[in-house]
Amino acid sequence: MKTLFGKRRREVLAGLASAKLDALLITRPANWYYLTGFTGDAGALLATAQETALVTDGRFTGQARQETTGLRIVAHSGGLLESAGKWLLEQRVRRVGFDPQQVSVAQLRVLRKAAGSRVAWIAAAGIPEGLRMTKEPSEVAQMRKAAILAGEVVASAARLLKPGVREFELAAEIEYQMRRKGASGPAFETIVASGKRTALPHARPTAKRLSKNELVVLDLGAILGHYCSDITRTFYLGRAPGRIRGWYRAVQEAQAAAIAAVRVGAGCGEVDAAARQVLAGYRLDRYFVHSTGHGLGLEVHEDPRVAKGQSRRLESGNVITIEPGMYVDGVGGIRIEDDVAVHVDRTEVLTRFTRDLIEI
Amino acid sequence: MKTLFGKRRREVLAGLASAKLDALLITRPANWYYLTGFTGDAGALLATAQETALVTDGRFTGQARQETTGLRIVAHSGGLLESAGKWLLEQRVRRVGFDPQQVSVAQLRVLRKAAGSRVAWIAAAGIPEGLRMTKEPSEVAQMRKAAILAGEVVASAARLLKPGVREFELAAEIEYQMRRKGASGPAFETIVASGKRTALPHARPTAKRLSKNELVVLDLGAILGHYCSDITRTFYLGRAPGRIRGWYRAVQEAQAAAIAAVRVGAGCGEVDAAARQVLAGYRLDRYFVHSTGHGLGLEVHEDPRVAKGQSRRLESGNVITIEPGMYVDGVGGIRIEDDVAVHVDRTEVLTRFTRDLIEI
Repeated sequence: MKTLFGKRRREVLAGLASAKLDALLITRPANWYYLTGFTGDAGALLATAQETALVTDGRFTGQARQETTGLRIVAHSGGLLESAGKWLLEQRVRRVGFDPQQVSVAQLRVLRKAAGSRVAWIAAAGIPEGLRMTKEPSEVAQMRKAAILAGEVVASAARLLKPGVREFELAAEIEYQMRRKGASGPAFETIVASGKRTALPHARPTAKRLSKNELVVLDLGAILGHYCSDITRTFYLGRAPGRIRGWYRAVQEAQAAAIAAVRVGAGCGEVDAAARQVLAGYRLDRYFVHSTGHGLGLEVHEDPRVAKGQSRRLESGNVITIEPGMYVDGVGGIRIEDDVAVHVDRTEVLTRFTRDLIEI
Repeated sequence: MKTLFGKRRREVLAGLASAKLDALLITRPANWYYLTGFTGDAGALLATAQETALVTDGRFTGQARQETTGLRIVAHSGGLLESAGKWLLEQRVRRVGFDPQQVSVAQLRVLRKAAGSRVAWIAAAGIPEGLRMTKEPSEVAQMRKAAILAGEVVASAARLLKPGVREFELAAEIEYQMRRKGASGPAFETIVASGKRTALPHARPTAKRLSKNELVVLDLGAILGHYCSDITRTFYLGRAPGRIRGWYRAVQEAQAAAIAAVRVGAGCGEVDAAARQVLAGYRLDRYFVHSTGHGLGLEVHEDPRVAKGQSRRLESGNVITIEPGMYVDGVGGIRIEDDVAVHVDRTEVLTRFTRDLIEI
């Protein structure tokens, strides 16, 4: 792993050189981990051609020394970004890249002041994120494990679906099962929605009890060995009415069409359109109120976005979700989501659980 | 609750007026909730004297209508902040406040472009956060429940402490117990550290098994009814050696001194100093590598900070943690943390669990 972190840091330096930057400020925790293995919560990573420094505070310096190699660990006692700026001043660098999406207006002000007027701050978004989009085989292997774990958790949660159970009890069981299976935790707040609440795509679990003759949506993901999974399945408690079955089949068909559209070179917008067209064929597209999917990795939402109009083309090593859905206010919603890895010659669905409607 | 949200919004408007602002952009989810009850993940709240608007996307508009009252809900299909900027343009406002700590450099660029040159963007940090610092009686009551729940979880976790149990299994049990007791989830990633790993103040639970004759630190918090608790206790598996007992007593005494220093009008730096002075008396202050505490509420880290040199004075309604500790590299660490509410005439320790060393 140490050589892996080193390789990634060299790739970042190549990115710096081509952007004519002397240094890059990295403030996003997933990027620190990706480039160094450091799992602490607070810090600033500074990459220059000469040296990579991790500025952090007394709570994390011991941990940083244990987790990383080949880094200069700089303990700060005053402000984190003030120390980062001063370190850059000492390095006599001139052009420093930062990610304008990751750095707040207030942070940039502190950095400018500490680094002095010799440093020019250059917006340089997404250099580590660009690397992270292309998963290495060891990363895909880890994500496969995280995805299989998520499918197993869906299976065990499905056995608990019955009238009278509260949504939040199911969420608790789901997250408990994840951890029992080795996950460090959920990749996001588990969604358990039932009845009309399934029409809310991001419903938080409530004290509502499941009852007969209603939809249940489970949307969950696990972090296993730092990598995220994300899966959604929709169930029906009882025998689903014809209208619900029809909707379910339409969403299922839309998902299959989007997965079939995934291949090296396909535009992300085309994958999104594949799902949307199927729903349009059933005149249900106006109920599909979100995008078809998103990249997945160390974070649960990464590039590439699989959304309307996205021209980015899929490459080998991308891992994305495919999750069309439909949501009818006052009635309910349906979503089916899987994680998909793009390989040179094939598409691999990482999540494993039936995509057919399960009536319980 | 609806009138409570309305009252808070009126207080924000008073803050706007005194800062000569026509509108305030609010992008922090805890602030939306505080001012409107909206629990969605994505949005921008815009407060003007005429109207408060919540800009959000199709995933959340239904939820926003259910959860809030008296708001204009604006569904955006393009970019969130582009829509927010356009809404401000339409309102013909001129001076718009934003929190430079909450708005990224890239976001401000989008806002400026969408709102046009008539709008001046004025840094106005912490207006809702300033209100949130002073908890209303109903908020303190909710935080008391969250704190009691956290203490109960410590008690049940203490019964599971024995050699052979893995750190992450304990973390899973802790978070499961929280949810079983009604918490919506942990307020932060539960810390379970054992042996030498207790010297890392923010250790993530690992596969390490507890063994005899070592320290165990549990640091956990629950979110109950949207409000956070935060408690830390340190245990010893076996009979603690004299040195460890001495350290424990020093930390315990430091914590008691800091709690005793809490009162309306006391400076936050003085409360921090009270803990630090006790440890200095034992020549252990150099092992106390973090601050004494932090505010707590809808988020686990809020104002006021209880740290060296903080001149802010405590007021009735503040809820803070008091959590001195000491960390000796290669040996271990000790921390004792409670949540404390400041009342006009007394200090209330909200968390309830013995602060004495428990040897198991």
